[in-house]
Amino acid sequence: MGTCYITRRETFNAAHKLWREDWSQEKNDEVFGKCSNHNWHGHNFILFVTVKGLPNPDTGFVINLKELSQIIKELIIEPLDHKNMNLDVPFLRDILASTENLVIEMWKILEKPIYLAGGELAKIKLIETENNFVEYFGGKEPF
Amino acid sequence: MGTCYITRRETFNAAHKLWREDWSQEKNDEVFGKCSNHNWHGHNFILFVTVKGLPNPDTGFVINLKELSQIIKELIIEPLDHKNMNLDVPFLRDILASTENLVIEMWKILEKPIYLAGGELAKIKLIETENNFVEYFGGKEPF
Amino acid sequence: MGTCYITRRETFNAAHKLWREDWSQEKNDEVFGKCSNHNWHGHNFILFVTVKGLPNPDTGFVINLKELSQIIKELIIEPLDHKNMNLDVPFLRDILASTENLVIEMWKILEKPIYLAGGELAKIKLIETENNFVEYFGGKEPF
Amino acid sequence: MGTCYITRRETFNAAHKLWREDWSQEKNDEVFGKCSNHNWHGHNFILFVTVKGLPNPDTGFVINLKELSQIIKELIIEPLDHKNMNLDVPFLRDILASTENLVIEMWKILEKPIYLAGGELAKIKLIETENNFVEYFGGKEPF
Amino acid sequence: MGTCYITRRETFNAAHKLWREDWSQEKNDEVFGKCSNHNWHGHNFILFVTVKGLPNPDTGFVINLKELSQIIKELIIEPLDHKNMNLDVPFLRDILASTENLVIEMWKILEKPIYLAGGELAKIKLIETENNFVEYFGGKEPF
Amino acid sequence: MGTCYITRRETFNAAHKLWREDWSQEKNDEVFGKCSNHNWHGHNFILFVTVKGLPNPDTGFVINLKELSQIIKELIIEPLDHKNMNLDVPFLRDILASTENLVIEMWKILEKPIYLAGGELAKIKLIETENNFVEYFGGKEPF
Repeated sequence: MGTCYITRRETFNAAHKLWREDWSQEKNDEVFGKCSNHNWHGHNFILFVTVKGLPNPDTGFVINLKELSQIIKELIIEPLDHKNMNLDVPFLRDILASTENLVIEMWKILEKPIYLAGGELAKIKLIETENNFVEYFGGKEPF
Repeated sequence: MGTCYITRRETFNAAHKLWREDWSQEKNDEVFGKCSNHNWHGHNFILFVTVKGLPNPDTGFVINLKELSQIIKELIIEPLDHKNMNLDVPFLRDILASTENLVIEMWKILEKPIYLAGGELAKIKLIETENNFVEYFGGKEPF
Repeated sequence: MGTCYITRRETFNAAHKLWREDWSQEKNDEVFGKCSNHNWHGHNFILFVTVKGLPNPDTGFVINLKELSQIIKELIIEPLDHKNMNLDVPFLRDILASTENLVIEMWKILEKPIYLAGGELAKIKLIETENNFVEYFGGKEPF
Repeated sequence: MGTCYITRRETFNAAHKLWREDWSQEKNDEVFGKCSNHNWHGHNFILFVTVKGLPNPDTGFVINLKELSQIIKELIIEPLDHKNMNLDVPFLRDILASTENLVIEMWKILEKPIYLAGGELAKIKLIETENNFVEYFGGKEPF
Repeated sequence: MGTCYITRRETFNAAHKLWREDWSQEKNDEVFGKCSNHNWHGHNFILFVTVKGLPNPDTGFVINLKELSQIIKELIIEPLDHKNMNLDVPFLRDILASTENLVIEMWKILEKPIYLAGGELAKIKLIETENNFVEYFGGKEPF
Repeated sequence: MGTCYITRRETFNAAHKLWREDWSQEKNDEVFGKCSNHNWHGHNFILFVTVKGLPNPDTGFVINLKELSQIIKELIIEPLDHKNMNLDVPFLRDILASTENLVIEMWKILEKPIYLAGGELAKIKLIETENNFVEYFGGKEPF
């Protein structure tokens, strides 16, 4: 018997823009392209949270998915779903809402509650559109 | 040989909210739920435009998909992609940005250019999230 | 402005078998193949419920999707999800659990509550596997 | 009880080009674009065949899907899968391999065998890429 | 030239429940939730088997996918497809049918036959629903 | 803050066959099966290119996706899309067009331009059909 990786999918819909106040409109447009639109745009984000561990011999579970889902929903989905990332979300204040920065902030929030639930956070994957997504392993470089 | 229906898929990402200025916050919340969030939210919209007709004997085409794609991109995708539906889109001014209203406005815009390109607009389908979409047949009721 | 068709997706996971008590094992195997396995098998079913109507001028909605989702969840998903169709589901008692029969029974259950919510049930689609699904229009034959 | 529509999905991978011998290279390029490449290109085609009818009271089936699948595989998939549509497929000889023409030829081939198996062919849908597909109802115009 | 990872997808539909005979109904319900339903429920499982190795210079293949598919179908799909995991499957006797335990048992079965076919089993991924899946690397912890 | 992995999806449609001139027809059929069809077949290929790195503090980006997309389109998609891999593609000359060999050749082409754009190529994944795909990490063996 050995370490398994179990993944839970959750979704949220949010508005954001990529924009730096300390840059000109031109600079913002040049770097962020259409994502810099002043009045925001939005996405259906798809989030995958992966937890690793040995299956519990009594339950066959690395972690109870119902509990994992509750942690993700309370700490990530509720603050983000049907919100504006740049204006409404406390844990994203003063953070450029790139997909890379999002997964890093999510890791900081999820790591300890998942540990307290008996699991080890191993990976966060966030799909922004069908054409791009980001994966984060807590800074580890598995490949 | 008979009538075929050909469909082109295009995508856009946009912010919107469902909100009536003439209603209280409470009324907006009650009717529109999370979609009424004041600072907007957003989606990856997926649009399917269906054109019907007899295949041209010379080309085997009901309509040239390259031409159909150009019409959709110019008239629908460019005004909407990476935009705020409530603030940035001329053809949605003063229109509640429900999915139903979106497809009706898109029909008005696409019907004639597709006709001039030799086709007949038959259906518009707009997917807002993986859990809901709207179809419109120009007011016809096929079922 | 004209009639729109709005669709809500819901999912459930259930066990079933295709089996007639009044047939021999051989006859059951011959007609139902692997689906006749005595100890059941199961599927992740995906259900699409389509409601037609004119968008309400005040809300832009054919029907409020939150309300539609509640109707489907209460009347269809809760009785079926994580259940055995042949043993646990009152509205399927004495009914062969083919996908065709499922959508017909669902129609009978959903038609009136959706009408009372201000909509008109137009179509039920039930996906059993990635390779087969059934559509039902209340007996209408749109094509 | 009423008419149901049951659909079977099958897949095939094939090469083709859109090209007319009686046109110049320039004319072919202008009309067919990249699809006119002299040495062919190819697709993973996804085929959906829909059969309508009343469920048989003994089986709950409009048509036995195993039988439907065998008909499609024998008559459509085997001649097309891992083949060149322009060179290898008898039923496409001298036919421009547009998606429209493909579904019309498939209808001619499938209609009678499905009728003999007790069903009525109602619709063929052929997905060529994630961005385009064709639907055919035997020449009927349901919308 | 270097090590490649090739993956084959196979599917099966099965019934199961999560249930311990040595626990009370209450304890089973508390831990396993809806998955403890006495009469079983079921899923469309999607299995991905990944084999690593250097491509053979003569064939360009890490492993012949036809051979890999045959191994998976004979040893995993046939015993599981349209079966009840708790009652019908010899290699799952006395094993709690959690997704974690399933991939561990599949690894034990597939490792040697794949080795004898010239490949090295590198990963098994099993999707139970669109919202959860498990990955297993033979006990290795790549991240 | 730590290393993130960002992935861009691109697609292309191409014809190919698996065939060795120095083998008999029988040997080609035996090893390559239907893929050896003399007149080619084809696929809708889906390509995922993953780049790793620390997010730039000014932009939040590991790499600008617009720039990454341009690199992939210019060097991989344009030479391959709507082409015959065996006849039309300079970087595949004299190379057996197995999926394994394709990703290895793509790596050689993409590694340096991505490095010059400030990123580090970490993984290439190429989906040939819904049932098989290959992953390549530049020869590394992460698992």
